[in-house]
Amino acid sequence: MNISTTERARVLVQALPYIQRYAGKTIVVKYGGNAMLDDELKSAVMSDIVLMSIVGINVVLVHGGGPEINAMLKKTGKESRFVNGLRYTDEETMDIVQMVLCGKVNKDLVQLLEMHGGRAMGLCGLDGGMLRAQKLSGPDDIGLVGEISSVNPQPIGDVIGKGYIPVIATVAGGENGETYNVNADIAAARIAAEMHATKLVLMTDIRGLLRDKNDENSLISVVNASEVPKLRRDGIISGGMIPKMDCCVDAVQRGVNRAHIIDGRIPHSILIEAFTDEGIGTMIY
Amino acid sequence: MNISTTERARVLVQALPYIQRYAGKTIVVKYGGNAMLDDELKSAVMSDIVLMSIVGINVVLVHGGGPEINAMLKKTGKESRFVNGLRYTDEETMDIVQMVLCGKVNKDLVQLLEMHGGRAMGLCGLDGGMLRAQKLSGPDDIGLVGEISSVNPQPIGDVIGKGYIPVIATVAGGENGETYNVNADIAAARIAAEMHATKLVLMTDIRGLLRDKNDENSLISVVNASEVPKLRRDGIISGGMIPKMDCCVDAVQRGVNRAHIIDGRIPHSILIEAFTDEGIGTMIY
Amino acid sequence: MNISTTERARVLVQALPYIQRYAGKTIVVKYGGNAMLDDELKSAVMSDIVLMSIVGINVVLVHGGGPEINAMLKKTGKESRFVNGLRYTDEETMDIVQMVLCGKVNKDLVQLLEMHGGRAMGLCGLDGGMLRAQKLSGPDDIGLVGEISSVNPQPIGDVIGKGYIPVIATVAGGENGETYNVNADIAAARIAAEMHATKLVLMTDIRGLLRDKNDENSLISVVNASEVPKLRRDGIISGGMIPKMDCCVDAVQRGVNRAHIIDGRIPHSILIEAFTDEGIGTMIY
Amino acid sequence: MNISTTERARVLVQALPYIQRYAGKTIVVKYGGNAMLDDELKSAVMSDIVLMSIVGINVVLVHGGGPEINAMLKKTGKESRFVNGLRYTDEETMDIVQMVLCGKVNKDLVQLLEMHGGRAMGLCGLDGGMLRAQKLSGPDDIGLVGEISSVNPQPIGDVIGKGYIPVIATVAGGENGETYNVNADIAAARIAAEMHATKLVLMTDIRGLLRDKNDENSLISVVNASEVPKLRRDGIISGGMIPKMDCCVDAVQRGVNRAHIIDGRIPHSILIEAFTDEGIGTMIY
Amino acid sequence: MNISTTERARVLVQALPYIQRYAGKTIVVKYGGNAMLDDELKSAVMSDIVLMSIVGINVVLVHGGGPEINAMLKKTGKESRFVNGLRYTDEETMDIVQMVLCGKVNKDLVQLLEMHGGRAMGLCGLDGGMLRAQKLSGPDDIGLVGEISSVNPQPIGDVIGKGYIPVIATVAGGENGETYNVNADIAAARIAAEMHATKLVLMTDIRGLLRDKNDENSLISVVNASEVPKLRRDGIISGGMIPKMDCCVDAVQRGVNRAHIIDGRIPHSILIEAFTDEGIGTMIY
Amino acid sequence: MNISTTERARVLVQALPYIQRYAGKTIVVKYGGNAMLDDELKSAVMSDIVLMSIVGINVVLVHGGGPEINAMLKKTGKESRFVNGLRYTDEETMDIVQMVLCGKVNKDLVQLLEMHGGRAMGLCGLDGGMLRAQKLSGPDDIGLVGEISSVNPQPIGDVIGKGYIPVIATVAGGENGETYNVNADIAAARIAAEMHATKLVLMTDIRGLLRDKNDENSLISVVNASEVPKLRRDGIISGGMIPKMDCCVDAVQRGVNRAHIIDGRIPHSILIEAFTDEGIGTMIY
Repeated sequence: MNISTTERARVLVQALPYIQRYAGKTIVVKYGGNAMLDDELKSAVMSDIVLMSIVGINVVLVHGGGPEINAMLKKTGKESRFVNGLRYTDEETMDIVQMVLCGKVNKDLVQLLEMHGGRAMGLCGLDGGMLRAQKLSGPDDIGLVGEISSVNPQPIGDVIGKGYIPVIATVAGGENGETYNVNADIAAARIAAEMHATKLVLMTDIRGLLRDKNDENSLISVVNASEVPKLRRDGIISGGMIPKMDCCVDAVQRGVNRAHIIDGRIPHSILIEAFTDEGIGTMIY
Repeated sequence: MNISTTERARVLVQALPYIQRYAGKTIVVKYGGNAMLDDELKSAVMSDIVLMSIVGINVVLVHGGGPEINAMLKKTGKESRFVNGLRYTDEETMDIVQMVLCGKVNKDLVQLLEMHGGRAMGLCGLDGGMLRAQKLSGPDDIGLVGEISSVNPQPIGDVIGKGYIPVIATVAGGENGETYNVNADIAAARIAAEMHATKLVLMTDIRGLLRDKNDENSLISVVNASEVPKLRRDGIISGGMIPKMDCCVDAVQRGVNRAHIIDGRIPHSILIEAFTDEGIGTMIY
Repeated sequence: MNISTTERARVLVQALPYIQRYAGKTIVVKYGGNAMLDDELKSAVMSDIVLMSIVGINVVLVHGGGPEINAMLKKTGKESRFVNGLRYTDEETMDIVQMVLCGKVNKDLVQLLEMHGGRAMGLCGLDGGMLRAQKLSGPDDIGLVGEISSVNPQPIGDVIGKGYIPVIATVAGGENGETYNVNADIAAARIAAEMHATKLVLMTDIRGLLRDKNDENSLISVVNASEVPKLRRDGIISGGMIPKMDCCVDAVQRGVNRAHIIDGRIPHSILIEAFTDEGIGTMIY
Repeated sequence: MNISTTERARVLVQALPYIQRYAGKTIVVKYGGNAMLDDELKSAVMSDIVLMSIVGINVVLVHGGGPEINAMLKKTGKESRFVNGLRYTDEETMDIVQMVLCGKVNKDLVQLLEMHGGRAMGLCGLDGGMLRAQKLSGPDDIGLVGEISSVNPQPIGDVIGKGYIPVIATVAGGENGETYNVNADIAAARIAAEMHATKLVLMTDIRGLLRDKNDENSLISVVNASEVPKLRRDGIISGGMIPKMDCCVDAVQRGVNRAHIIDGRIPHSILIEAFTDEGIGTMIY
Repeated sequence: MNISTTERARVLVQALPYIQRYAGKTIVVKYGGNAMLDDELKSAVMSDIVLMSIVGINVVLVHGGGPEINAMLKKTGKESRFVNGLRYTDEETMDIVQMVLCGKVNKDLVQLLEMHGGRAMGLCGLDGGMLRAQKLSGPDDIGLVGEISSVNPQPIGDVIGKGYIPVIATVAGGENGETYNVNADIAAARIAAEMHATKLVLMTDIRGLLRDKNDENSLISVVNASEVPKLRRDGIISGGMIPKMDCCVDAVQRGVNRAHIIDGRIPHSILIEAFTDEGIGTMIY
Repeated sequence: MNISTTERARVLVQALPYIQRYAGKTIVVKYGGNAMLDDELKSAVMSDIVLMSIVGINVVLVHGGGPEINAMLKKTGKESRFVNGLRYTDEETMDIVQMVLCGKVNKDLVQLLEMHGGRAMGLCGLDGGMLRAQKLSGPDDIGLVGEISSVNPQPIGDVIGKGYIPVIATVAGGENGETYNVNADIAAARIAAEMHATKLVLMTDIRGLLRDKNDENSLISVVNASEVPKLRRDGIISGGMIPKMDCCVDAVQRGVNRAHIIDGRIPHSILIEAFTDEGIGTMIY
């Protein structure tokens, strides 16, 4: 599409009220799924993050890395033990999780942001004692899978204060020097709460919450946190959407203004969400 | 024109390198001509200024106000005396110039910027002793028309430092408490130099420097300051373009990176100049 | 009167406790009346303001400008329509009010303060969105005469913070971009309250509150705000003194320590009020 | 050894002049070898670093990780291709190097420092664009082994400025988004120079420079950088000592006051070097 | 005793948790008794204070000076009048007290600290209006002996803020320009409270609180403030220990975490108290 | 003399240009002679100093104390040994000098300044290592009389920076922990130089430099430093005036703008010198 320079200028000016609304505010983005695997989408996400950062928004980028972990586990020939369908994370597995998340995925994102003109610093939950975890309680012992016991937002604030985009791998430290893998969606929600973020954005591979899961046109754009239990009873929130929704509700209840489930498969979905009237995906408030 | 949200996001992202280039830098805009009379163009200029301010550019808005002064002189029935074709500015006329520029045009612009979401403060050359002038020397005495003797950039820097867009009326103070009207283009150039601006933008009612003044397609996009004497000898720089060009060359020689003569009749011309590859008008470097 | 250098030094030292009392505090002076028209008195006021500023007092100078407005209206041949004895302020009149107050009176004061060695910046209620107004409610529509709906003290504080004396013309902005003329006494009282001023000083052309309005020796030096209703019932506060007193009471009730009605016809009346034991005029606390 | 509390206090007091000498100064420690493999030595190093940090020394910890890389390469069954005896680092190998250094070794050190009461942040050369590298030039192409083209000390300074001990993995970014493994000794020397460090400390598995490599008692305690060429011609500097010495000389020539080659096998060797008269190892100045 | 460098390093590392605990905290030390008379002990105290200051502890040194005062009184041949066994402090005596405490003892300590590498500033209660006193009430008039009416901690904080160790002589100012001698233990306790000190340390010439005053091995290491009345009834706190204990209890009740009575005759007793597990003397909490 | 409030205000306003000239500048006053002995004069000096401090001048008060020292020496029955007419300062004498200057005169001045509404801090040359001295060289050994070897202006600047008036007793520290009495005039001159003072004021008991020493009307108001040798040859500068003049010339040559010898017997002489046109005494520039 060929857009004239005047049209371009108009588009910029139309973004102005959104920029003003969020300048100086914190937005936590959980980055994952297809948008992290497809190179073009990845580049679009990086541009979006850098743009938001340049116009004065404090973006915190929290990422997962499941596929890369699986690839590495396979490469090392590590055979996984499963407990009731869940993979048991022994120390050796945890080492690989940490290496891949903190050493590869995290630093690659840092490098990409820098190449897009941003200034980024890659942290994990161990840096500055940011994320503390304990063994996930549950019926089965699945090893070094943790649940967050506390979040120390200071290292994130310090890094932002020096003008960097913090990129965060969700590996957390335990009481006795062990490390835990913690769920990145939950970590993002907790970090958003501790950073008094105005917005939590979860990037997914779906359009958002659909009234009819087979009909992409049945998108529910706005959900009040109080409606969630009913939507769940009605089966509209189901399957993989349940933990995503729980994260969003948790963040909102801890003081985050708005949580969003957006479709990472759409190029520039973060920017569309933040900087246009139409928005995108499902918003929980 | 109907632009999709993805296209909008792409346009924003494409502005990123320009925003990065100018963030924290100072751009002095001399605002005048049609862009100041037509309400729609005016609103576009205000949006442009506020947007540039929001993304971290220190914009200094210097304005003229000839038509408003003439209207007011007419209204008061003040008859002008002319000296060799130049209007003689007696004390009574100067009072009206000051009133209109500092009290009406200046404060109206401040209000408009505030309504577009900016934070603005309206100053003139008297505030903080910013502009000092002496009687313009020349063959004929044309009264209280001044030439700038010194520019004190501190009040401008102070106002920027507190987060406001300085809007400047070019009335200057003399040695003995008299006030002078000084040329706004020249004042803008001098202020740009003292503020170590990266860019001076003069808004005019022409396309820029034309090789053939009757052919708008003969625009000369880029001029090296050293080429100006020849262009003048060749008659390409002539008439009203001479003082404009002199201002630009003066600014560039005093250390401003680039000076631009742009067409204020094109909506968002400032933004197009600053934030697109194509640019607009004529650039002197 | 010939005063020896030792006597001079003694006078300076006697001012010490007053300087200490007010250093770092804010004093809002409403400047108007004869003290604004007589050149010698004007010069004395400017000296007083600069001296107070130099010894560490944050002076805010709020001014009116009735006579200058009338002169300009007359000059433009603008015929005023009167509604029940009050002049109707149409848009054209408002333009002239704004020009004269913000462009002439305000900037002339700035220049005078600068010439007396002060550093001053001239603002009006539009700058930084300082004064917001709405149409004055009342039985008759008298046009663009406003009543203050809110005061944003930040631009004043910002200007003080950078070391300037703020000089304020009381033109305020409305909801829809219109401008209003607001009463300068009331504006000064409201600004004093928002700036947490220690003192509000209204300069007038009378000695202060007189028990017998024909006897200048019947001055009431001190009035408790709670006594005002009775003084009004008794007819001691009457005529033009009523709104002055109301301003003072309003300021005191909003937290200003003391409000003063002083006689601007006495040279250096501000300094006498602030820096001597005898004081001057009527104090409301 | 049973030391009385008075003796303990005396030891502390004796460290005072050393603490005073280095307070506020920067010391870059290259950590590697046995001191990184033996848990007890490791714990002693961590204590030393935290102590130095607490008493006001800016310690920068640069680390290698050869053994861990080899273990991981073996685990993944990656077969290495050798070029003239040097391992060729293909992209897959480089990925593993990055994972192990930045994700495992680096973050484990961060966690250990935090557990010893320090505040640490783990960075690599990609963070904030700290280390830029280009392909190591040489007769043979050995893949993604880089030589440092530039060091940006700002991210290190920023992290120190916020009170953290920077822990640095020496993975560097290339022009086109590729990453390089760079030599940790050299990186430490270059970082020491850019940080205007007062001291560079290389931890090794030998006593220092020995006049007779078979006699640990033949330690040369002090070497002037200018003596190095002769010592090399005489064969006293030979084998693995050559590149270590080159690093030290390079650092000293770039302005670092003193460089030290110390024996990491001795517990608390860093502290002994820094805080006692006897010193330890070989000092190059 | 010959301690190896490794042992020395270990001792330093063992002090680490104590340093971390007190860094940035304030410790008020009342210095007096033998530790002030014996040159070697004095030097040890100076080292201790400087060391604590260097590692980031804000030490406030409050001192007495009885023996020096007595010597000077004797030298001037001033005969003392006694009232019920207490020396009457007339104006002449007070002058000598002030001279000796503020001019001699205080400044000598400052010089000693400076010679040990510290930065010190000598103040008394008159400086910055730090200590205000009134005549000690009691059955007998004993002249210019004062009791503290208020403590202004700002001069102490200001001096610390500029990096100096404040050394304080306990001479206080009265309402009418007279000066009072106030008890140094009490002054130290009050200063500790106002400075929100974490610790008050009183140096004495005894081991601490002894269960049996003839048996140095009967030291009571820890006393809860609430136990004091009983210990006093039981005669365990008696004689000169009563006012010392009262000071400690007073400090603790005003918010100081811990108060200590330590034996100044033991070299480095302050450091032993602060930086070792064993501690020394009696702690009141 | 009865001065009207308007006259008082006028006097204040006339001081304005002087206040503006010196605001933020440093003035070093050497205080001594009659002005230090007469209570009324003393009170006037204190008022002057506090006033200058309040209006933003950084006053440094350097004092002597000869008469008080003599009185104390006499009181202690200390017999002085004289060497060629100069009193030999043995250690015991030096102790008394230090006590009287630092403990009595200094702190009494601090208290007086505080009572006049100032904030003062009493220092001597030992505090913060301010004055370093060595034994005065000369034909005869006169004991612990020192000459200044270096001045460290930082403690003075630190105390000013926190808003206090530094009051300085001129006792200096030697290499080996001994203390020296140094000449207060010379110390004031050196401090003025190191503090980049704009003015040095020496208070004396004479009118200034007199052309005819028996005629107070023969005052020489202004002396250029270069004229001093001739004035000395001519015998106009003679006796006690020689060292005073030398101090002034030394200060001026080290960069102090102006040095003044003023008559401390005239009340408020400092203020007259600083804040009036007439000035007082003799100025050396």
